[in-house]
Amino acid sequence: MERSSMQKRNERLTAQMVKRGMDALVALSPENVFYSTGAYIMTQKLIRDRLEIALFSQKREPIFIVCGIEESRAREETWIKDIRPYIEFKESPVQFLVDALIEMGLEKGCIGIEKHYWSAHHYVELMKAMPNAEFVECQGIFEEVRMIKDSDEIKILAEAAKATRKAVEAAFLTAKPGNTEAQVANQIKNNLMNQGVDELSFMVLGTGKRSMLVHPTPNDIPISPGDIVKVDCGGLFSGYYSDLARTAVVGKPSSVQADVYKKLATIQKEVIESMQAGVRLCDVFNKCKKLFEEKGLPLEMPHIGHGLGVGVHEHPMINPLNEEKLQENMVLNVEPIVIYDGFCVHLEDLVLITADGVKILTEAKMSDMIPIID
Amino acid sequence: MERSSMQKRNERLTAQMVKRGMDALVALSPENVFYSTGAYIMTQKLIRDRLEIALFSQKREPIFIVCGIEESRAREETWIKDIRPYIEFKESPVQFLVDALIEMGLEKGCIGIEKHYWSAHHYVELMKAMPNAEFVECQGIFEEVRMIKDSDEIKILAEAAKATRKAVEAAFLTAKPGNTEAQVANQIKNNLMNQGVDELSFMVLGTGKRSMLVHPTPNDIPISPGDIVKVDCGGLFSGYYSDLARTAVVGKPSSVQADVYKKLATIQKEVIESMQAGVRLCDVFNKCKKLFEEKGLPLEMPHIGHGLGVGVHEHPMINPLNEEKLQENMVLNVEPIVIYDGFCVHLEDLVLITADGVKILTEAKMSDMIPIID
Repeated sequence: MERSSMQKRNERLTAQMVKRGMDALVALSPENVFYSTGAYIMTQKLIRDRLEIALFSQKREPIFIVCGIEESRAREETWIKDIRPYIEFKESPVQFLVDALIEMGLEKGCIGIEKHYWSAHHYVELMKAMPNAEFVECQGIFEEVRMIKDSDEIKILAEAAKATRKAVEAAFLTAKPGNTEAQVANQIKNNLMNQGVDELSFMVLGTGKRSMLVHPTPNDIPISPGDIVKVDCGGLFSGYYSDLARTAVVGKPSSVQADVYKKLATIQKEVIESMQAGVRLCDVFNKCKKLFEEKGLPLEMPHIGHGLGVGVHEHPMINPLNEEKLQENMVLNVEPIVIYDGFCVHLEDLVLITADGVKILTEAKMSDMIPIID
Repeated sequence: MERSSMQKRNERLTAQMVKRGMDALVALSPENVFYSTGAYIMTQKLIRDRLEIALFSQKREPIFIVCGIEESRAREETWIKDIRPYIEFKESPVQFLVDALIEMGLEKGCIGIEKHYWSAHHYVELMKAMPNAEFVECQGIFEEVRMIKDSDEIKILAEAAKATRKAVEAAFLTAKPGNTEAQVANQIKNNLMNQGVDELSFMVLGTGKRSMLVHPTPNDIPISPGDIVKVDCGGLFSGYYSDLARTAVVGKPSSVQADVYKKLATIQKEVIESMQAGVRLCDVFNKCKKLFEEKGLPLEMPHIGHGLGVGVHEHPMINPLNEEKLQENMVLNVEPIVIYDGFCVHLEDLVLITADGVKILTEAKMSDMIPIID
């Protein structure tokens, strides 16, 4: 990410902070630390107690508190100059944050923190150390800023989406009846690696009746003629996720399979076409619900899509309760799922809301199921 | 995992709960939910707000509160019968927990929860709903029970460790000067997938001067004669991690490289040999520190190893502050690292503490560096 993009992003975060009456903003979750600092500290996800904390205010330059072990990585990647390493097990990163806040004169300040991520343990430590400060949830700030993507982010997300679609469709083309679920899944992973994925984040693959499970993991079952093969997978590309679902069939689909697939593909297409800037997210969901009803299919999922970016499920969610409106430069996955007659069809594509309408970033061909043949 | 193993594990958790005066025990983190229920709900790691909660007490059968979307997966994998699905966005999983605790007559009970994992947001919701209950940290219970492995766990960890060692060493054998870091890393991932890894969890690989970064991610730099290639990687096998580090050299090592490697390998061997049941963890660390000093090498890491299991860094840590003693059936990674003269050597192997001594589960050959040659 360019330094200028990072600073612009920082300005948007700070503007929201001021608008909401906060004196400082503290990022703690892996997504928001990466988003605000540019540094991707992988161990944040694996070793949660090893905190990395970014602190922003209007009064002075940002401060990045990092575990000493990760200092070299942080310095290499972030645009922030004031990096403060703590010694793990010996020093408390929360105390480093408290010291920095006091240094800024914020003993009694209003501090935005990620209450949805802070552990109760560290939260209590923070409260005790600063009893006169007010700590408020800042999740909304990050949600609001993150949901509108800049051109760098759109480029990365579009490339990640296309790479993932190609990886899945190519694996379907080269798979054969008799391959196991795990073999098909590994071929998808290989295709993703060949296209430069940094991390393989999730791989859901289920055939036959197992396709009806929401998140089956691939196992050693061979795929057989007549089986549905449902895949939902994603990886991390330069810190941004891909997330795509496709459904194939081994051999020739039954008439019910072909019919249900065609109906779902048509529904997805019509839902996507309805996603113009200004339309409410709940109305997108309701449009989908209505189409399911018209075609006699059951809609059982509580949402049919979500924002995508440095998180897998980002704001905004496409669910019946969300009255927010679609805006230009939002990037969303649209993923209707149908479970019917002992099998499941899942289609998930990535779209960009533009001033002129909606653009499908996966460049999908959705009209027919891909057959897996000898 | 066998049902009987799961029940035995549950008995050990419950015994600790009673010993510490708690009326109930609540698992929330992905590791402890998997450990106590047997269900691996992948989205717990990716979508943190989608809670899965396991509740144990002496009074009645355990209760498993799951997101409705994950119900089928949970039912397929857990031994727990009382599964209670909530509807995401519409219903509060914390309220489901509160209802279950009240059903057990625990309005004023002492409840063990994972304060290091509960988000401040959900913690405050819980406090408000049950103002008369006492909530205490239960991390110690899980740490204590998890650090002693049963025979099923040792088998999985040993197989995962061996598969990972083979994957890395085979990739070194087939790599060539001029390959990029990413190519070598992808070959390791391929080898892991061919051996049945379920998830590729982390991949650290850096050559030349980048080997000195603690967690470099592989990039498009080609490896050249004289370069050190440092790898630290791991995957998930049936819910259990592998974690292994190896250091190779492209072509013939310089005399300094060969000397530093030999010294580190000797140190690691001697440290491992000192790891008998009854020895304190801090003494293992101090032994390592003394050997570094004797050989004129700098020891800069705050720890030199850690337990491994359903978490990457489990209890007990091998650091200078840990006065606990090694016990039979502990499984630990031993990973001394040296940064010297512009390069880094990292060796990490997995050991099992037995009644007769210590066993190296990676079955390592550590005496010389693997050369990467044409």
